[in-house]
Formats: sequence, structure tokens, C-alpha cells
Amino acid sequence: MVDVVIVGTVGLDNIKTPFGSVTDALGGSATHASFAASFFSKTGIISVVGEDFKLAHEFDARNISTKGLQMAKGRTFRWSGYYEYDMHHAHTMETQLNVLESFSPKLPEDYRHVKNLFLANIDPELQLDVLEQMKPRLTLADTMNFWIEKRREQLIEVIKRVDIFLLNDGEARELMNTTNIVAAGRKLLELGPQAVIIKKGEHGALLLTDSKIFSLPGYPLEIVRDPTGAGDSFAGATIGYLSNNDSDEDIIRKAMVYGSAVASFNVEDFGVNKLKRITMNDIEARFKEFEAMVKF
Amino acid sequence: MVDVVIVGTVGLDNIKTPFGSVTDALGGSATHASFAASFFSKTGIISVVGEDFKLAHEFDARNISTKGLQMAKGRTFRWSGYYEYDMHHAHTMETQLNVLESFSPKLPEDYRHVKNLFLANIDPELQLDVLEQMKPRLTLADTMNFWIEKRREQLIEVIKRVDIFLLNDGEARELMNTTNIVAAGRKLLELGPQAVIIKKGEHGALLLTDSKIFSLPGYPLEIVRDPTGAGDSFAGATIGYLSNNDSDEDIIRKAMVYGSAVASFNVEDFGVNKLKRITMNDIEARFKEFEAMVKF
Repeated sequence: MVDVVIVGTVGLDNIKTPFGSVTDALGGSATHASFAASFFSKTGIISVVGEDFKLAHEFDARNISTKGLQMAKGRTFRWSGYYEYDMHHAHTMETQLNVLESFSPKLPEDYRHVKNLFLANIDPELQLDVLEQMKPRLTLADTMNFWIEKRREQLIEVIKRVDIFLLNDGEARELMNTTNIVAAGRKLLELGPQAVIIKKGEHGALLLTDSKIFSLPGYPLEIVRDPTGAGDSFAGATIGYLSNNDSDEDIIRKAMVYGSAVASFNVEDFGVNKLKRITMNDIEARFKEFEAMVKF
Repeated sequence: MVDVVIVGTVGLDNIKTPFGSVTDALGGSATHASFAASFFSKTGIISVVGEDFKLAHEFDARNISTKGLQMAKGRTFRWSGYYEYDMHHAHTMETQLNVLESFSPKLPEDYRHVKNLFLANIDPELQLDVLEQMKPRLTLADTMNFWIEKRREQLIEVIKRVDIFLLNDGEARELMNTTNIVAAGRKLLELGPQAVIIKKGEHGALLLTDSKIFSLPGYPLEIVRDPTGAGDSFAGATIGYLSNNDSDEDIIRKAMVYGSAVASFNVEDFGVNKLKRITMNDIEARFKEFEAMVKF
């Protein structure tokens, strides 16, 4: 039985960074998020791939259900990008939507009452479509600047209907039209979510609720090989941890620390390579490092 | 009897931000730092002003000793700058060194064995000059990119001779020639200091010692009116707190939280206007907010 359902993209990535490159590597928001969530909960993905997709066994190896992974005629979604030395900004060389262009999520019957849902970065139309099909206990949703510009109205509708909304600092500023991320977070809360998480890349993340702010610094990594999927793995581990717990503010804080711990591993190697190699013990050790790092 | 000596600039600032402007406002690194330190310890400044300087009473009002403030022929150091909405970067319109050009620090006799010394941002030649004249129990030093470029050799000599070295993230990368601030911090530690503090502006600060990393997030302010002197007030409060305590790693962590608390007030109004209005109770309340903000 699946406890966490993740809707997002599954794709093949070509990535180049100052530390190397990969071709046709398993990627996409649902991939990074489900790999991360799978350390905490039985996870299933909702996505689509093309006939050229040969990597379903990588999900099996992490015990991630692909029952909701449709196979469509045509080629799998592909993204090519590179990073400069600063690693903050992904430069997209090419995005081929391919089978994603006509994707219509269909939920397996037994996913309709799953505990936790993560609407990873994908067209807000599709996020709303999934929300119509299920009644999860808790929903987390992410987005990106592309949808803020192209699907603003639908995105606002998503925000109104989820429990926790997640986005990065630049997106929060753009969406709420203010330079201050705390002000942006407050405005987002007014739309309805119980909590707003603002990701700040290497600088960590903020959690805003009605009455409190939690600020978690980033894990001070000396080597970042490939930042792709950092935000997705952060969110995946967060929703995975929350599926075993309530969603009080103090529990969301702990979930974010697990999210940051998993994301810090995610960026230490290309694609999901590092997440394939670590264990829950590694994640617990990094959680303890966070505790030691922020104590005063 | 003075417990903390601060060497740096005292100047008159013209500052413009999206929230207003000030003309001939009391500024400079020694000013912001000594105002901040004065909440914790009896503080004295070493600096120089010109015959046009009429603001010594502002130091008196905070019980800051101006015994080491020389009055020289000519005009006081002046800085004019502005900030755009993002507030991260100060745009300098004009810097008039004036009496600073021929400044030679002369320590009052009873400053030579003062407990704590802060070498605020000033020519490293002058920082070394002061180190020759006194033997403090603990020395903290700051710098800026200008000196990294113009006085690299002398700056390295300063770093070798101080207990705690402080600089911002961009400066750390530039000085140690690496894009990663943790790697930069490790290299700085190899030069000799017991601790290195890397300021990250609104993103907080890192403390690196031989075996540990402390990461303190920034205080999530909704309104920043004037960022000028944020780093100086951070350092001033830090050295002020340390003068009453040992300098173990866990004490430096607490000192940095007090530093961040005072710096967060400093930027809420122009110049040192806000620091003139707050009390130790306000600072303690913000310290507690930091505790609540990072707990998980």
C-alpha cells in the first residue's frame, strides 16, 4: 500500500557541470522527489514516459511503485542543461516535452485515498486535475517560474487548495510582486495554505505559518557536483517524513531538516546516483550534523 | 576602564535607499561597531576626524570613550552611496578619505592592555600598526574587497596575527581564490586564526573552527531601511559580548547571535539611528526570537 503519491515529471537528462557530465540520466521532478521520499514511506509516482524509456527498474530498486507511470507513444521528456562554477543557476540548453505534451494523469483506484500527496513541479492544470481525483490527508505543492508566468491563475488556484506550498525565493518574489521574501511568504499564507516553505538554495529554507518563522540554514557542502533536483529531493523527503507523522509546525520543521539532509546528498553526485548509494543511517547522521550546526 | 577597543573609520555618510535618505549622518566602521559593542562592554574607539566634526556627543551619549579619537586638520572622512531595491549591494557614489589619508593610530597608554580588540575595516597597514602597540587578550579583525586587492600581503599578515577573522562571503571567495565558502574558510583557518566568521548578509553567518561549523541564519526582516554598517554592528556586538566571557567555540556562537540581533536592528533605520533607541531588553528579546526560529 502506497502512503505517498508524487505527481511530476520523469525524464532523461543531459547535464554538464564543472565536475563532469551525464547523458540520458534518469531525472525529472517526480524522480528526484520519489527517490527521496522512498527512504521514509512507500511511494508511488504519477507521470508519463515514452517508448524509449528503459529505466523503470531504477524505481523498482527503491521500491517505488510505477503503477501510475503511464507509457505513451513517442519519446520521453528530455532536458539538457549546464551549470557554471557558481552552481546557483541552471542554464537550459534544450527542453523536449515529448510525451508530456499530451499527458493526462490517471490515478490508480487505490491511490485516491492515499495519505500524502506531493504535486511536484509540473503544469498547474495537471496539478488541479490530480486534486480533483483524490482526497489526500495532506498536500504539498511546488512550482517554477515558467508556470508563474504562463499559468498564473491556475497556479493561484492550486495554492488555495493545498496544505503546504513550496517555492524558491526568486519565485516567491516574482509571484507575490515584492522584493522581500518574508512579505511574499505572508501574502502566500493569505491565499490559504497552512504553511509556506521558501527554498533558498545553498542558503537553506524558511517555513512560514500564521504565527511563526522557522529558518534552516543550508548544509555547508564543500563539493556540489550537480545541483539538479535539489529542490525536488528536499520536498520528497519532507512529504515522506510527514506521512508518518502529524503536520504540526514543529513536525514540519523536522521534516524540512530531513529534506535538507537528503537534498545535500542529492547534489553530491549526478542525477540520483548518490541517492542510490546512501542508507537511512547516512540521513540520520546528517540530521544530527544539522542539530550540532545550528545549536547555540 | 575600557574593555573593548575598536579601530576603524568615523565618517559622515550621505545615504539614499528606496526608504529615504540622510545627509552628513554619523557613520564609519568604528561608529557602527562601537555603538553595537557599547550594549555589552565599556568601549573606546581609535580613529580620526576633521575640524568639521561636530558629532562627538553621540559617542558620549552611548558612554563610548573618544579618548583615542584624534582631531586632525582638514575634513572628516565622507562616504556617499545608494542602494537599489534589492539592498544587497551598496553603490558608492563618492569616497573622500580626507583626514584618513594621513591617519596614524596612537593608542592611549591605558589601552595597551585592554581585554578585547576589534580591528574594523580600515587599511591593513593601520591594523598591523595597532597590533604592534598592544597585547589584547582577544583580537577580531574585519576587512573589505578593496584591501584584498590593494594590500593583500599586509592583510594576510593581519590574519596570521588575530584570534578571529571576519569577512563576507564574496571577500572570502576572492581572498582564497575558491568559489566555495566552506573551502575558503578552511584555507583561512590554516593561516592561523582560531576561528573564521563568514558573513552572508541577509543569509546569516558561518563560524568555522578546526573541528566544527556553526551556521546561523539571518533574522527575517520584513523591512530593511538602510543596510549600511550591518557587518560592523554585527562584529561590534560580537566582540562586546566576548569581552565578558571566554572565547570557546560555544561562546563565540552566542556572541554571533547577539551580533546578528544588533545588526538586525541597525538596518531598521538610517545610520545608527535605531541603535540609539533600543535597549538591552530589545536585544535579549531578539536573541530569544533567534532561539525560537532555529529550533527543531
